[in-house]
Amino acid sequence: MPTPRLSDRARRMPASPIRRLAPYAVAARAAGKTVHSLNIGQPDIPTPKEVLDRLRTYPGANVPYGPSQGLPEFLEALRTYYGRLGLALAPEELFVTTGGSEAILFVVAALCDPGDQILVFEPFYANYAGFSSLVGVEAVGITTRAEDGYHLPARAVIEKAIGPRTRAILVCSPNNPTGTVYTDEEMELLADLCATHDLWLCSDEAYREFTYDGLTHHSALLLSGIRDRVVVVDSLSKRASLCGARIGNVVCRNPELMSAILKMGQARLCPPTLGQWAATAYVDVPSSYIEGVIAQYTRRRDVVWHALRETPGVTVHRPEGAFYVCARLPVDDAERFAIWLLSDFDLDGETVIFSPAEGFYVTPGLGRDEARIAYVLESARMARCMEIVTSALRVYPGRTVPAGT
Amino acid sequence: MPTPRLSDRARRMPASPIRRLAPYAVAARAAGKTVHSLNIGQPDIPTPKEVLDRLRTYPGANVPYGPSQGLPEFLEALRTYYGRLGLALAPEELFVTTGGSEAILFVVAALCDPGDQILVFEPFYANYAGFSSLVGVEAVGITTRAEDGYHLPARAVIEKAIGPRTRAILVCSPNNPTGTVYTDEEMELLADLCATHDLWLCSDEAYREFTYDGLTHHSALLLSGIRDRVVVVDSLSKRASLCGARIGNVVCRNPELMSAILKMGQARLCPPTLGQWAATAYVDVPSSYIEGVIAQYTRRRDVVWHALRETPGVTVHRPEGAFYVCARLPVDDAERFAIWLLSDFDLDGETVIFSPAEGFYVTPGLGRDEARIAYVLESARMARCMEIVTSALRVYPGRTVPAGT
Repeated sequence: MPTPRLSDRARRMPASPIRRLAPYAVAARAAGKTVHSLNIGQPDIPTPKEVLDRLRTYPGANVPYGPSQGLPEFLEALRTYYGRLGLALAPEELFVTTGGSEAILFVVAALCDPGDQILVFEPFYANYAGFSSLVGVEAVGITTRAEDGYHLPARAVIEKAIGPRTRAILVCSPNNPTGTVYTDEEMELLADLCATHDLWLCSDEAYREFTYDGLTHHSALLLSGIRDRVVVVDSLSKRASLCGARIGNVVCRNPELMSAILKMGQARLCPPTLGQWAATAYVDVPSSYIEGVIAQYTRRRDVVWHALRETPGVTVHRPEGAFYVCARLPVDDAERFAIWLLSDFDLDGETVIFSPAEGFYVTPGLGRDEARIAYVLESARMARCMEIVTSALRVYPGRTVPAGT
Repeated sequence: MPTPRLSDRARRMPASPIRRLAPYAVAARAAGKTVHSLNIGQPDIPTPKEVLDRLRTYPGANVPYGPSQGLPEFLEALRTYYGRLGLALAPEELFVTTGGSEAILFVVAALCDPGDQILVFEPFYANYAGFSSLVGVEAVGITTRAEDGYHLPARAVIEKAIGPRTRAILVCSPNNPTGTVYTDEEMELLADLCATHDLWLCSDEAYREFTYDGLTHHSALLLSGIRDRVVVVDSLSKRASLCGARIGNVVCRNPELMSAILKMGQARLCPPTLGQWAATAYVDVPSSYIEGVIAQYTRRRDVVWHALRETPGVTVHRPEGAFYVCARLPVDDAERFAIWLLSDFDLDGETVIFSPAEGFYVTPGLGRDEARIAYVLESARMARCMEIVTSALRVYPGRTVPAGT
């Protein structure tokens, strides 16, 4: 009897570079090591008290389905949130999703048929490729470089990548994994390209608040001239430290796209009721909460950036936002180095797990010696983590640049 | 400038027959009517106290991502649950999903490429077609009939539907929407067909406990001879009244399928942490809870079935399980009747919303005069709902059989 066959889709589906080394971390912990997790954007920041208090006083006798679009009171809370950003939204311009993840899946599926293409700036959040692959869509990478601070290449370079199957440009700012905050001029360039070439602009703004050094990020929803072709994917995961609640949303002023997303959303019934219930209190959180968080991330960013900059053989660009840094390491292969850190190295019983960056590129060969480090632990622990990484680099057998140079 | 285009996929995506009439119910409520919801499988049953207590004492300082496969303590709770059913499962044979919905999506995507087919017995849970459509897969319907109690047709009829692109048979027992509980012989027939024709058997067992009149349902995991080609999709939504927690799972003993699902699961990071946290207490719930629930549903089933059976012109089969009944109504079009109930009818200010059944069929023309009624309200309210439906049928302008016959 034949072995039952899986789909080609399943075989081609990329394993997440963020998650696939997790088994090595499990083994390292089982072997008694302390493993600091720098691989996942999981902050140690407390969730606002208002949100956890609301969760703990959940009054329902059961946990019912909500509307597919989201709980009315949570949609109102989102309208208040966007209103404070200067965005007056009608309720039908919002759709609550199961994390930003589902928002990306629905948007890619609603815009692209199998064989269609979506432009991304590499290195990019690897799961864009995962969701695209799930629905048969090709993520086409336009390379950005550490030397340019991972800012956009010239207009002509982007235009060269636009073909007959291109349906959208997907942009993330503040950027995961590079930490780059695109300028208003860059966002306007993308808007103009979308208008000229009949493309959608998908803007992942999950890190909207996380900008440093006085920089700010303006939502793509504020761009003029392409109102009906902008779709924002968003998430409360980071700004309210609610990653596991799985609450994200889509914002779009194109009613056809919103009806398509509603049909997809009806098939999966509703986003999580408990997370929405709790997150409704986010509008009651004083602004001092997020200001404190930003101050904390600025310190962490500085610790990590200074440590990496001073490590021989490392190339790094100072992140302007989000809480990730991409670094080129003096190693043969960043994934091999990451596994070696977990399996063969420790500094007084401690080691780290980070994400090898190759999976954040689609262009073959790029990113092999790069790492994405999430600075999601408090400054003193981040300093210790950097000590571990730099000590490890000194003795790693696959080092490519002699130590001490 | 052209209007931005959506994907053909988005245009073809079916609207949910369960959810798409919701706006009419909103309007009816706004007009002051009481609308009893019989359209959605949302029970009024309380969630077990143990589960809500655990939710309300959530101890975390934040709500972090969990592992993509599920929280270890919740996976252990699932192993205990299945162990009590006589199923000894290894942790790697389980995968926690965002509701049964995501379990279906992942399984269909892992087994089928665009253009592949999956066999379903119609009427079937409409969202199977929604998820299939999302990933380019065709749901092929094999018709079952009220006259046969919606049990399976002869082997030859099923075999005739199996073609070169058929990848799996998807079966739901106890059945949504018919309430049919397939016999052991029927499940063995399906197992034999899958083994003979190199197909997967996907078994949706979300209603496992909901059987009446002394019937029981055996999990497809207990079928012999096709151990590596059975995949169960499951959910805590109904058995713990946790619909909105969005906690489901996949069970499969084929490691290749489980790795494919892990890759998809890693892309969406993790299932909801809060729901898993609370649902871990489900194993502490005494069996008297589910016994009480079953007794209550038996009474509701009887109320609905007797009322419908005695209504002139209605054809109905007594449900053996789950909490739905399919009924043929003496109307021109069940969707038109459903909308009329909301827009143009009330009995002393009350009306009902049900799901027109046409969307539970893929064969064109079938189900147009059928309704799915979810008996999810307590017996006295269900009796009142039946009074509303039978009164409405007497005066509905699109009635096809003269009233009183």
